[in-house]
Amino acid sequence: MLVRTRNATAMRRVKKFTTFAAVDTFPNRHIGPQEADIKQMLQVVNATSLDDLSSKVVPVHIQRKEPLWTDEPKGEVDALEELRDLAQQNKVLKSFIGLGYYGTKTPHVILRNLIESPGWYTAYTPYQAEISQGRLESLINFQTMVRDLTAMDLANASLLDEGTAAGEVVGIMLSHHKGKKKSIFIDQRCHPQTIAVARTRASGFHVELVVGNFKTFDFSKNPDVGAVIVQYPDTNGTAEDFTAFFGTAKKAGAICAVATDLLALCSLKPPGEFGADIALGSAQRFGVPMGFGGPHAAFLACKDAFKRIIPGRIIGVSKDADGQQAFRMALQTREQHIKREKATSNICTAQALLANTAAMYAVYHGPEGLSRIAADVHLKAKTVAAGLRAAGHTVAAGSFFDTVHATLNGLTAEQYRAACVSRGINIRVVDAKSVGIALDETATEADVVALIEAAGGKGESLRQYFEAAAADVLGPLKRTSKFLQHAVFNSFHCEMEMQRYLYRLEKKDLSLNTAMIPLGSCTMKLNAATEMMPLSWKEYGAMHPFAPLDQAAGYIKLIQKLESRLEAVTGFDRISLQPNSGAQGEYAGLRVIRAYHESRGQGHRKICLIPTSAHGTNPATAALCDLSIVPVVCDSRGNVDVADLKAKAEKHKDNLAALMITYPSTHGVFEETIDEICRIIHANGGQVYLDGANMNAQVGLCRPGDYGADVCHLNLHKTFAIPHGGGGPGQGPIGVKAHLAPFLPNSAVVSHPALGGAQSLGSISAAPWGSASILTISYAYIEMMGAKGLKEATQVAILAANYLAKMLSKEFSILYTGKSGFSAHEFILDARPFKKTAGIEAEDIAKRLMDYGIHAPTLSFPVAGTLMIEPTESESKFELDRLAEALLLIREEIREVEQGKQPRDDNVLKNAPHTHMCLTGEWKHPYTREKAVYPTQFVKQNKYWPTVRRIDNAYGDRNLMCTCPPMEAYEIPLPRS
Amino acid sequence: MLVRTRNATAMRRVKKFTTFAAVDTFPNRHIGPQEADIKQMLQVVNATSLDDLSSKVVPVHIQRKEPLWTDEPKGEVDALEELRDLAQQNKVLKSFIGLGYYGTKTPHVILRNLIESPGWYTAYTPYQAEISQGRLESLINFQTMVRDLTAMDLANASLLDEGTAAGEVVGIMLSHHKGKKKSIFIDQRCHPQTIAVARTRASGFHVELVVGNFKTFDFSKNPDVGAVIVQYPDTNGTAEDFTAFFGTAKKAGAICAVATDLLALCSLKPPGEFGADIALGSAQRFGVPMGFGGPHAAFLACKDAFKRIIPGRIIGVSKDADGQQAFRMALQTREQHIKREKATSNICTAQALLANTAAMYAVYHGPEGLSRIAADVHLKAKTVAAGLRAAGHTVAAGSFFDTVHATLNGLTAEQYRAACVSRGINIRVVDAKSVGIALDETATEADVVALIEAAGGKGESLRQYFEAAAADVLGPLKRTSKFLQHAVFNSFHCEMEMQRYLYRLEKKDLSLNTAMIPLGSCTMKLNAATEMMPLSWKEYGAMHPFAPLDQAAGYIKLIQKLESRLEAVTGFDRISLQPNSGAQGEYAGLRVIRAYHESRGQGHRKICLIPTSAHGTNPATAALCDLSIVPVVCDSRGNVDVADLKAKAEKHKDNLAALMITYPSTHGVFEETIDEICRIIHANGGQVYLDGANMNAQVGLCRPGDYGADVCHLNLHKTFAIPHGGGGPGQGPIGVKAHLAPFLPNSAVVSHPALGGAQSLGSISAAPWGSASILTISYAYIEMMGAKGLKEATQVAILAANYLAKMLSKEFSILYTGKSGFSAHEFILDARPFKKTAGIEAEDIAKRLMDYGIHAPTLSFPVAGTLMIEPTESESKFELDRLAEALLLIREEIREVEQGKQPRDDNVLKNAPHTHMCLTGEWKHPYTREKAVYPTQFVKQNKYWPTVRRIDNAYGDRNLMCTCPPMEAYEIPLPRS
Repeated sequence: MLVRTRNATAMRRVKKFTTFAAVDTFPNRHIGPQEADIKQMLQVVNATSLDDLSSKVVPVHIQRKEPLWTDEPKGEVDALEELRDLAQQNKVLKSFIGLGYYGTKTPHVILRNLIESPGWYTAYTPYQAEISQGRLESLINFQTMVRDLTAMDLANASLLDEGTAAGEVVGIMLSHHKGKKKSIFIDQRCHPQTIAVARTRASGFHVELVVGNFKTFDFSKNPDVGAVIVQYPDTNGTAEDFTAFFGTAKKAGAICAVATDLLALCSLKPPGEFGADIALGSAQRFGVPMGFGGPHAAFLACKDAFKRIIPGRIIGVSKDADGQQAFRMALQTREQHIKREKATSNICTAQALLANTAAMYAVYHGPEGLSRIAADVHLKAKTVAAGLRAAGHTVAAGSFFDTVHATLNGLTAEQYRAACVSRGINIRVVDAKSVGIALDETATEADVVALIEAAGGKGESLRQYFEAAAADVLGPLKRTSKFLQHAVFNSFHCEMEMQRYLYRLEKKDLSLNTAMIPLGSCTMKLNAATEMMPLSWKEYGAMHPFAPLDQAAGYIKLIQKLESRLEAVTGFDRISLQPNSGAQGEYAGLRVIRAYHESRGQGHRKICLIPTSAHGTNPATAALCDLSIVPVVCDSRGNVDVADLKAKAEKHKDNLAALMITYPSTHGVFEETIDEICRIIHANGGQVYLDGANMNAQVGLCRPGDYGADVCHLNLHKTFAIPHGGGGPGQGPIGVKAHLAPFLPNSAVVSHPALGGAQSLGSISAAPWGSASILTISYAYIEMMGAKGLKEATQVAILAANYLAKMLSKEFSILYTGKSGFSAHEFILDARPFKKTAGIEAEDIAKRLMDYGIHAPTLSFPVAGTLMIEPTESESKFELDRLAEALLLIREEIREVEQGKQPRDDNVLKNAPHTHMCLTGEWKHPYTREKAVYPTQFVKQNKYWPTVRRIDNAYGDRNLMCTCPPMEAYEIPLPRS
Repeated sequence: MLVRTRNATAMRRVKKFTTFAAVDTFPNRHIGPQEADIKQMLQVVNATSLDDLSSKVVPVHIQRKEPLWTDEPKGEVDALEELRDLAQQNKVLKSFIGLGYYGTKTPHVILRNLIESPGWYTAYTPYQAEISQGRLESLINFQTMVRDLTAMDLANASLLDEGTAAGEVVGIMLSHHKGKKKSIFIDQRCHPQTIAVARTRASGFHVELVVGNFKTFDFSKNPDVGAVIVQYPDTNGTAEDFTAFFGTAKKAGAICAVATDLLALCSLKPPGEFGADIALGSAQRFGVPMGFGGPHAAFLACKDAFKRIIPGRIIGVSKDADGQQAFRMALQTREQHIKREKATSNICTAQALLANTAAMYAVYHGPEGLSRIAADVHLKAKTVAAGLRAAGHTVAAGSFFDTVHATLNGLTAEQYRAACVSRGINIRVVDAKSVGIALDETATEADVVALIEAAGGKGESLRQYFEAAAADVLGPLKRTSKFLQHAVFNSFHCEMEMQRYLYRLEKKDLSLNTAMIPLGSCTMKLNAATEMMPLSWKEYGAMHPFAPLDQAAGYIKLIQKLESRLEAVTGFDRISLQPNSGAQGEYAGLRVIRAYHESRGQGHRKICLIPTSAHGTNPATAALCDLSIVPVVCDSRGNVDVADLKAKAEKHKDNLAALMITYPSTHGVFEETIDEICRIIHANGGQVYLDGANMNAQVGLCRPGDYGADVCHLNLHKTFAIPHGGGGPGQGPIGVKAHLAPFLPNSAVVSHPALGGAQSLGSISAAPWGSASILTISYAYIEMMGAKGLKEATQVAILAANYLAKMLSKEFSILYTGKSGFSAHEFILDARPFKKTAGIEAEDIAKRLMDYGIHAPTLSFPVAGTLMIEPTESESKFELDRLAEALLLIREEIREVEQGKQPRDDNVLKNAPHTHMCLTGEWKHPYTREKAVYPTQFVKQNKYWPTVRRIDNAYGDRNLMCTCPPMEAYEIPLPRS
């Protein structure tokens, strides 16, 4: 019997007496195949029902029979209503807390046409560059913007947050000095959360973190210091001149890094002009809502000398097969998952959607607009300073940009804070007598008056303060160099042009709103409109991560309920939502395990077993935690070789820290022995870290907490419907068993029972709950799917994979299946034989799929020369059939080469993708134009056009260019070029 | 000196002491050309400043020097905040008032990807069908949906609202009977607003409207009755069987029309099965928010016999130059503006965006989903009925679908209403003792309980009522026939497929987010994101038009402020916002004039002077008001021949009712004599109706109320930034001088001082303030632009037109300019010479522009064989230059034909537009593929592809097909086909 039968549901409900059957139900919208489709698909895979199938796929002894919970799912309208109720429990005050988070006005044209546009947010990471030119162009703009404002040589395409960006400096230092320097200095006036995250990162590497005052720091007494980090302007608002300090540091062989602020750099001399090697910070205030902590795009820019060791993605310029300019990710061999255990960073995503938002903010405002905003913010800060001085308070001497640091007379900091709150404003209490007030572009004249009056000053004297504020406080630190002179920042200042630019870029990319993206291990499922809508609400967006928690009651409730749902899903006792990417989750998980061992006097346990099939992030993360990796081999079915595992666990039993294992495996199989594996590890004193990348194959069917895992991360952006955003954001919470709970992450600024306590490993991310605002997405998804819907989604995902595998097995060999011959939620298609028979490689198939208007599956992971396909539950049978048809037709195309009907070096696969520009010139290929671009009738009528041909990666890496190309290189004339 | 100099502004503001200069300013976002551009453009047209230019263009004696008002404009964030404040003053209760307006759940996937998508809402009316196939396909779906649900033969592509749809039956009757029947019967249980609008329409034609009970109506005593209108289910909820009545009516020669409800027709026998000739109603409850009255899509379906006389647009299927299926507007020669004074309707728009929303609602739910919703609503109504009966009240006998009509015992209707309001629910008070309760898909179990408890019933007995509700009340009226069996309604039921279908259609169309749409007389200006955002808020969307006004305080404030702004802009004393299209505004204006004459015993004044250059709607509208049209000739400069006007005014001075005149003229010229013309009309007893289509050339420069007009309509969808929605909605308020104010439109249901009173002409539209929800757009636009910004927009629009005219005048002749050689905001390009020299017609140029990725200007209006270009102020100089470049290159392409280098019958113009499908086959043309599709480098890199080639209109009209083509005709296989 089919599980998803609405009538059956209705019947059951009437029996227990519910009057009216639910009409507004979400699972049938989320799940692609409809009832009749599922029936057909089950026949193809030879299963009688979804339950029958999943009971064959998931090992019997770990199957869970009970529902995850019993409350009913919500309809789309009700779920949104609940999120609105929660939103209204957040009290959004004006936030002048600062500390790296600022109020900002997201231009509505960007909100509507980028942040709220599925074409932008449903895109995947731009690995397939030919169908990602739109967002790659935008990310190049981001890099150019950061490069220009910091005056460095190049910038990456974003990092997770300012804290982790500072943390990455530790790894850069290790790389640069090849591990010979093991100490890092950080100035005490960096933001506290930045120091905290850097401390965690340093301690992971067993690097010493020295916190101190840069003015008095003595390199001669600290010869092991390989890098310094300072903040500019610092956390109290003062902009110091670091020229001399950096001079000394360099002589001592230390890398000089500056945490800074892009808006301030519109007014202040940029780091590149006073000797910095690295500049980092957050681009949040460029139009990205604070969102109670994120997501935002952090940035990291450096001098040329460091370009091959900076972490994160770098977008570069190259050329395509026709010699046209084309963008793509550069220097990918630098990436951490490729370096594996040699990595000094484990980052494998970016914050593309937010980086693009910030870049577009700069495109829309242009250099003049940004300067105007900076000048306005600065003037307001100076006016507040003048007002506070006039009221008898002491404002710190020195240069400041937007943040006033005042020592109060006649009232305590707490009294002043309360007076501000009563006026609808949050400020920062620095200590008992002093406060920080950080102005931003949302500050009004009324806010300035309120800030002065709350301190006992006279609002009516505003004019006088305003005039006093005319005095220059920047002096020699005033910026004189130009920035953002490129045409792209000087062309789209009216809304009509901006809208068209956004749409033009959007249309270049193949996102989920065009076709399926069957990426193995990446779960490109539906991102439903309902789930995305609350992100635009200011009650979630305008909340500062360090706002008093009594103002964030809605967020706290949402967080606690989401945690309890995730506990139910995983079978764990506690969840931490702090890690803001999957790799961060891995890192947090291993750090929790390390802290656990250390708490028991077992700090010497430093052996980490990792199966050879693991994703490269696993060894990279283990390396970041100072663990030694011992690989475990896999057998011919792709399963962990239990005998090998057992031997190695026993061999290392005195030093065994952990096993990192992905389940179901990266080969797409539910290994039967998972519980046994966990028992072996425990028996040898180790902890089991479960990589939750494939959690979407387990939800509702089995739970890591039940079969023996101790900790597991979850990719909310895979399993729980957060969109990939074209390459970020992600969110990677971890679940742990009770014995690990005391070690969960905490915050350097915020205290709450839901955060780690005294034994905490420290901070993983800058904000207490990571990228809190996107938790609304997963929350909505879970509440609308309900326990039954979540389980069914898992079952249909498994069905879809097995259905496709069955259809394709006629013509392709499928690598690895479970005991019963089934795959889990993904499977591997072997393309290796075609290399010999036709000179065709997996990449050729991937590029040829573009001509069919379909995004390639995962390429050469986990097995080189293969394609890993994961269809997900939200793709309709129609779309699944379209993919099968495309791959079967491609098989025919390969056969034509095999049979000599088409040459090995000039065929539709080798020449793929084809653009429309191919069609107009002389045609010299042995196949027709029609065959090149219209392989099916559907495609002819619904053609998606790649905008460039196959891109030459090697050329781009040899000729590295990571900023907007000069105008003469633009094929498209820009409006104001 | 330039007007828009930000520094100058800042300086002025500092002088008057404002501390902080505004940074978030809107006019510079709305207006396309930036400061430097304006300077260059002024040089080209030989003017020293915007003021210099406008003072040369607008006749000196009508120029207004004072600013429209003095308050400062709002920034985008503040404007949205103000609209949010107003929204929160609306108290949105659950609305079970009914009367043709129902709560509905707009599927969020449709909200985000259609209603909130610029690709859909910035599109123009699909006159250029080759670049409008997306929305044409959707409108065909709408027509198919209406045809199926009503069981008629064909449907049009929407009308304005249910009331005007009923009003159109009067015109249909006149057409059908060729004016020989002059009486129409309408059942008293039609909705009151429907009767009111039909009454107005009938009285305009001097047709008698007989209101009565269909059960007792005697045709033999009313032989002049040419049509009957009944409601099904009726306004009290009862569904009657009209079979016998229609049989009698037909024998008496009357057309049988039914006002009905699409959701009810999912459960009830459709009109086509009981003898109706015409079915009409509103598609509002198919996902379109009530919006305090609109906009929604009304529908009108008919039997085949009436297909050539039904008003409104009809979308039909035809084929293109390559024989491919293609959609386009059918039977355009039927259209009212072409019939001019022979018209029996003046409608010249539709509600495309809302029709598409409703159609997509049906596509998403499919026949099963709709049936489930209908059954759910019906069950709730029956349960409420059972509960009220149990509580001792009397529920009307007979069949009902969603509306319970109850006569109360033991409490008054008003007491019950109050009890409901206290439970958050509005119901309808029918009379002192009886109420109407109309359930809808938003009704919850809690609502059902509340409705019963408010009447003294027992909520806890719900189970008993629910069981009582199982009894069938529809009996023989139950629907048995199937509907929506076409694949398009059975393929897109999961969100992923729905989203892709919406995006696939969107991408087919060239909307403002792709390129400029330089349509003369249509003002395709920016529709800013900020202006559009409040439309998604339920405080505006979920308000019933007949909700108690104390619940609509926000709306009332907004309406009153908007009225006062429009009064300032026009110089009139009163505004009526009721007319929900431009043509409705014209009609209201003329009816006001007629009512004024009648009030003074001058009802015989029935001569209406109309210049020959007038838009066809003018004479059509005059015809609807029973006026006799006397044409006034124009001189060689395109101006009204004042001597001729004077002679005719004097000749008809005893019977002169009005002059209808467009200003600036449809020739794009500010006639110098406008004030003199007004004086002449007044001197001869007439009133001046000013067609406000070109108001956007006047705002801030001159005012109709100042130079002599008595009444004027405004196209909010042109001048005040409401988007065209791909062919509607519009909004056409009128302004009048004080002496005409007593005659302004009223409402049959709602009383308010801002509506017409005792002397009112009656109702023009069904809702008191027409399409109230979109007034938020114009409100935001006006508040953000401010008086200065609005004026500057006008000036830049004039500059842009003159700049383009100057650039093009090198190669084209420009028809008509003002005294000083300038155009107003638009100008006419003469294409007639090319007919002779090259066999090229204006249409060929229009189609060729598609290959350049630009929408054609207005074709052959007001002069056949010409193109009228209106660039608007929000197009950047870049885009203006791109249009100029395209037209100049096209001129070269024409020259090649003139010079014999290209044949007259096979050239890039005659064969335009070219699709990508052209490129793959054998190429037989004497020009290259490259030349066909990439006329410029910009186009090559940023190609917009028309999806079909030139469409054969005649073929489609000869072979009329107005519903979804059979599946075998679909080139794109549909998911479930």
